[in-house]
Amino acid sequence: MPVVTVLGDGQLARMMQTEAIELGQSIRLLAGAPDSSAAQVAADVVIGDYTDLEDLRRAVAGADAVTFDHEHVPTEHLRTLIGEGVNVQPGPDALVNAQDKLVMRKKLRELGAPVPPFAALESVADAEEFWDAVDGAVCLKTRRGGYDGKGVWFPSSKEELRDLVADLLGRGMPLMAEKKVALTRELSAMVARTPSGRTAPWPVVESVQRNGVCAEAVSPAPGLSGELGSRARDLSVRIAEELGVTGVLAVELFEFTDANGQPDIAVNELAMRPHNTGHWTQDGCVTSQFEQHLRAVLDYPLGSTEPTAPVTVMANVLGADSDPELPMARRTVDVWTRFPEAKIHLYGKTHRPGRKIGHVNLSGSDEPRTRREAQLAAHYLVHAVWADGFVAE
Amino acid sequence: MPVVTVLGDGQLARMMQTEAIELGQSIRLLAGAPDSSAAQVAADVVIGDYTDLEDLRRAVAGADAVTFDHEHVPTEHLRTLIGEGVNVQPGPDALVNAQDKLVMRKKLRELGAPVPPFAALESVADAEEFWDAVDGAVCLKTRRGGYDGKGVWFPSSKEELRDLVADLLGRGMPLMAEKKVALTRELSAMVARTPSGRTAPWPVVESVQRNGVCAEAVSPAPGLSGELGSRARDLSVRIAEELGVTGVLAVELFEFTDANGQPDIAVNELAMRPHNTGHWTQDGCVTSQFEQHLRAVLDYPLGSTEPTAPVTVMANVLGADSDPELPMARRTVDVWTRFPEAKIHLYGKTHRPGRKIGHVNLSGSDEPRTRREAQLAAHYLVHAVWADGFVAE
Repeated sequence: MPVVTVLGDGQLARMMQTEAIELGQSIRLLAGAPDSSAAQVAADVVIGDYTDLEDLRRAVAGADAVTFDHEHVPTEHLRTLIGEGVNVQPGPDALVNAQDKLVMRKKLRELGAPVPPFAALESVADAEEFWDAVDGAVCLKTRRGGYDGKGVWFPSSKEELRDLVADLLGRGMPLMAEKKVALTRELSAMVARTPSGRTAPWPVVESVQRNGVCAEAVSPAPGLSGELGSRARDLSVRIAEELGVTGVLAVELFEFTDANGQPDIAVNELAMRPHNTGHWTQDGCVTSQFEQHLRAVLDYPLGSTEPTAPVTVMANVLGADSDPELPMARRTVDVWTRFPEAKIHLYGKTHRPGRKIGHVNLSGSDEPRTRREAQLAAHYLVHAVWADGFVAE
Repeated sequence: MPVVTVLGDGQLARMMQTEAIELGQSIRLLAGAPDSSAAQVAADVVIGDYTDLEDLRRAVAGADAVTFDHEHVPTEHLRTLIGEGVNVQPGPDALVNAQDKLVMRKKLRELGAPVPPFAALESVADAEEFWDAVDGAVCLKTRRGGYDGKGVWFPSSKEELRDLVADLLGRGMPLMAEKKVALTRELSAMVARTPSGRTAPWPVVESVQRNGVCAEAVSPAPGLSGELGSRARDLSVRIAEELGVTGVLAVELFEFTDANGQPDIAVNELAMRPHNTGHWTQDGCVTSQFEQHLRAVLDYPLGSTEPTAPVTVMANVLGADSDPELPMARRTVDVWTRFPEAKIHLYGKTHRPGRKIGHVNLSGSDEPRTRREAQLAAHYLVHAVWADGFVAE
């Protein structure tokens, strides 16, 4: 059976290991530390640095395919490995669109895909010009390395923008700006694609962000019109095809109201790997995104993306300011006592404020109720308190 | 988060690791070899012999609970470990009923649970007497260590019985005999129970054996009357309670027609661990038997045992006389190409005739069709040939 090397050691790699076990595969990790989320649960672990070519070479030796749990492996190293015959999926030409926000937007605009107005910022003058062009509705972004709300700023005055840009450019950070979208909500359209060109999109989900971090995903997106859902799904497939993405692609979308009062979409970000907004597939779909990612990078046929329940809600377990005294194991007990159907997924990570340490999936037929219960469960796992005042008997 | 030690290294331990990962737990294995099915996919592996007390002590040190993927750990060692404060689930007093077929039958008869007529065989004379008592309908069984049709004989004459019993007793094998049941089919009633006494039964499934080995399980058992289904489920719960079972219990049942022409059930065997007839729960039930087993032995609340599809069929992938040239990875590709909704589970085991090397789960709404497709998929994974003559385009 094939060996897949995953470059990275976080929860995404950990959840790929879950699926690799059932598929009879061996997964090999390039991990930064033996106690990292994924390395805790895998037998074949290479400890090393994903920016070090020699470490990468050790991790990929003999692998049938090499893939990622993050976007931060240097492009030049990937090109070197490919030159040495390594099967890297997705390849660097696709991946650069998930690594560099400006490259991605230029590419999508070229394809005619909907993106908000944007500009490269090479100077303070560029920033001032963009401020005027969009009437101050500016979202400033670092081109590379941002995630979970980090590397994104919303300056409230031209002066603030000017100071920020001067400071960040002075520190050598490549920048871009985008027109702030008056969004009604965020959506996520996910799809898997194989090197042979097979594609399988999942239902479009609603994604709820808090403080720039994904807090919930609801599948299918409530109240989404069939027309807009198809458009979002088709867009994700087209982007996967045009960019040559392999494995799982997440297209994060803004939903907004257009000039005619109609709902419309624009692309926010791309991720080329399993994505937080796809965790619901573990318990609400025939094929989870982690299984599908492994199948896709190996150029296997893709699995069915049919949901197994009318609605599935994923709520993230995000570390709070402090970790309650009640141990996590006791908190899971309390959640299961109240909600026996809750599917709790924990990443083996220690508590840190805002850190993603797990998620809860809940399936049902009543969207508001399922959503409320998933929120309550996730909140309890963080705070050891029921947000609705519930007291166990 | 808690550490659970699993004594054993087969596919049941492997599939527990899948669930332990998602629950954020650490699983520790006592494995016979580093390349065994479960040890391939776990980080925390103690290599040792489960009949050696010192090896057992190394494997259980610091564990929150200790459980099994087979029944063969010596009872006296378990008692010693418990005396040293180790939390063994299920405990030896329950487990002996899954280890010794005579002890189990005596216990069940005492409880008034339905078991076929049986007798201990201490001598050839005992065997002859039993032959006469049941008019030659004799099933001869070794009391301990039998599995998958091994350790079971159906002698066709009194002389054959006599020779067999003389030979086996001469080799020191403890024996019993049971009246051969004119069964209509086999069923399996599974339940999980916690040390605190919570129980959660699954739907009763039909189990199909070939050459003494489980070949298929169909959930729910087709055409099973609500009354008989309830009786089987209640029986499994009662056995779990009366025997003090913790973790997952499988009650293998014979269905037969009674003197009044009505369907009835009798207990065939017990297993106190996840069981082949429960593999369908991985893809057809809110809570899989592997997750439930871990939750049960830790005395956590049990998960919902609601099915997620109208019917789910599990078909075993059993090694044939020879392994086809087409690599297993290609066979999985062919199965998924034909049946994108097939859930393939492989155990990382090499081919050997009759060996359980994986299984396929398929969910659907049409029982005969789902069953046929699961059979076709499992057959293809073994033979690299479609049993219905299908030729891929």
